[in-house]
Amino acid sequence: MATGTNPQAALRRRNLSAVVHAVAAGDNLSRAAVAAEVGLTRATVSTLVDELIAAGLVTELGAQRPGTVGRPGTALALSPRGPAGIGAEVGVDHLAACVVDLRGTVRARATVEARNRGRAAAQTLGELDGLVRQVTEEAVALGLRPAGLTVAVPGLVGRDQHTVLRAPNLGWKNERTELTVENEANLGALAELWLAGREKALPATDTPQGAAQAPLTDFIHVSAEIGIGAALVINGSLFRGARGFAGELGHVPVYPDGPRCSCGARGCLEQYAGEEAVLRAAGIAPELPGRLKALRTAASDDDAPALAALEAAGRALGIALSGAVNLLDPQAVVLGGPLSELAPWLLPGVRRELGRRVTGGGALVVESRLGRDGVLLGAAYSAVRAVLDDPSEWTAR
Amino acid sequence: MATGTNPQAALRRRNLSAVVHAVAAGDNLSRAAVAAEVGLTRATVSTLVDELIAAGLVTELGAQRPGTVGRPGTALALSPRGPAGIGAEVGVDHLAACVVDLRGTVRARATVEARNRGRAAAQTLGELDGLVRQVTEEAVALGLRPAGLTVAVPGLVGRDQHTVLRAPNLGWKNERTELTVENEANLGALAELWLAGREKALPATDTPQGAAQAPLTDFIHVSAEIGIGAALVINGSLFRGARGFAGELGHVPVYPDGPRCSCGARGCLEQYAGEEAVLRAAGIAPELPGRLKALRTAASDDDAPALAALEAAGRALGIALSGAVNLLDPQAVVLGGPLSELAPWLLPGVRRELGRRVTGGGALVVESRLGRDGVLLGAAYSAVRAVLDDPSEWTAR
Repeated sequence: MATGTNPQAALRRRNLSAVVHAVAAGDNLSRAAVAAEVGLTRATVSTLVDELIAAGLVTELGAQRPGTVGRPGTALALSPRGPAGIGAEVGVDHLAACVVDLRGTVRARATVEARNRGRAAAQTLGELDGLVRQVTEEAVALGLRPAGLTVAVPGLVGRDQHTVLRAPNLGWKNERTELTVENEANLGALAELWLAGREKALPATDTPQGAAQAPLTDFIHVSAEIGIGAALVINGSLFRGARGFAGELGHVPVYPDGPRCSCGARGCLEQYAGEEAVLRAAGIAPELPGRLKALRTAASDDDAPALAALEAAGRALGIALSGAVNLLDPQAVVLGGPLSELAPWLLPGVRRELGRRVTGGGALVVESRLGRDGVLLGAAYSAVRAVLDDPSEWTAR
Repeated sequence: MATGTNPQAALRRRNLSAVVHAVAAGDNLSRAAVAAEVGLTRATVSTLVDELIAAGLVTELGAQRPGTVGRPGTALALSPRGPAGIGAEVGVDHLAACVVDLRGTVRARATVEARNRGRAAAQTLGELDGLVRQVTEEAVALGLRPAGLTVAVPGLVGRDQHTVLRAPNLGWKNERTELTVENEANLGALAELWLAGREKALPATDTPQGAAQAPLTDFIHVSAEIGIGAALVINGSLFRGARGFAGELGHVPVYPDGPRCSCGARGCLEQYAGEEAVLRAAGIAPELPGRLKALRTAASDDDAPALAALEAAGRALGIALSGAVNLLDPQAVVLGGPLSELAPWLLPGVRRELGRRVTGGGALVVESRLGRDGVLLGAAYSAVRAVLDDPSEWTAR
């Protein structure tokens, strides 16, 4: 295991990470191209690449430009059989697990329906463990080596990343686990930051309207399952806030004297745009399996209550986001998670309110290309990211 | 002039800056103590200190611990006769200018009443120029050398720092000037970041209730003259946003269907907590000279309309700040500028709404120690900060 005290080891760690990140970002670069990219000598880079190949993190794709004179450069890529990240997701009524390889490609995946609301955390996590074992075994059979597991939860997570402080929609309070847990909205935002620009992650399900060409580094990522989750990416990093509670868009006041929220306050966004509120307004039972699909179908069929419910939700979301955009002036607002599937009906209201209320005129609103998968992908890719940031633990083995 | 291309020069610049920052932050440190602080050899530091003394940035205070054996260390401090920062402020009905020395101490200052609303920008800036000349002459007579001027304006400033895009309360739109301009709320926040922890800046006029002991690095700074300005400090830096518009708290929706705002939207915070709205509700003519003092007097005398107006403003401010705190989870909210003088009447409502609406329970709200002076001090100290960050331009002369 690498230590932080030896300056030589620290330098080697940094160089290994720079090389592996260059290989990850590049398109089949040669050693010479990697050396030029990271600003090290070709000899140093070649040694580091050899170590990364021996450790199974990098692979050679064969000679480039075979017709040219001289020793051809060999194209490098991240290995499809190296360390792999495992992600798991606790939803209100589903559990999921997946494995991604170093390239961010999903290699194994499992989802089950489950009634997790009010269920004991130990029982829910026990069932999740079964799914995690299943996808891990599949990944190992493909030659992948598990590098870490992150579990996405719809709730506030403590700084230790092992305590779910509150997950009201699951009925969890101060649940401690040996697993690494993370707020689902944070993982959705990280997936957007890490993977949304990379077509290899998942096929693009959607072309964002007016999406910026350069990767976004400053954005508000909004997702929703039952509540409304959001996360802020600032200067290319997830912004967690002083206590780790940043991004609580669901409890931004929209109509301050409105209905009482589960948090005790009145008129929070969740009371207008949370899944339960929208389903109730649309006349769909919030317990119905496939209820979101039912909502989409009703809206597609021009069902008046469904359209009115989504219009009201879009308006409330736009009002809350107007405040957020006026404060943060981000490059974009990204709609992700299950919310992105309702985008056709939510976006008009969101855009209208932002257009009216944002200083300097509106804001770019885009749908996540990762859609509902963002959270799970973000959870799985977290461990991959850790490997890319410090590959020395793998090369030293 | 230092250039950015020579690595030797860049290293020297960094070292000079590290030394001068250590002298600034320290309490009469010796050269040995500075060397220990910045992690350079004593010989290197001594050479750099000699350069800084020769350039007039650092001064020797005489021998420390005169009774001890061996050559006594000489205490170092920033010079009170070195480069000085000049700040100027365009208010709706006043103009001000001041000079601070390297230590952040105000050395010259002038304020005049002026009716700047609707007046031509050239005329206002012409009158301001007279004040700036006056304080500059005073400072030069004290042996100070002007290092730069920043003008605080109550409006949106372009990225070039020479264009006031909109300052509705002055009636300015796309006013370009050769002067360096900056949004007043940003400067108030920077003053808080740079100077609030330093008693030498200004005598503390106020002891913040429950103020954090460590310097704040993540906070929302709220100020107000006519409108409501705010600025975000994140990770110890001013956060400007993608277009430079971050911190527009005044146009966060509070009651989305409320009265029409000057921005065109409805129910913005400015319509409830902006000076004009509060004065109107309190029955005080918004054009009255000394109107804020009149409001304070009325509130002190338990005048019912004044108390009700301030209560409503505090509540609206608390609602808007609840959204901001839920999004950003800052260490604190700081009330500065003219708003801080109304803190006794605003704070109860602010704290009550934050207590009700913030996830995880409330937020620390403190009054700025700099009070109304924060903006002007921040403007003046900007040039000092630039000198401390790159003293090489001064040592090379």
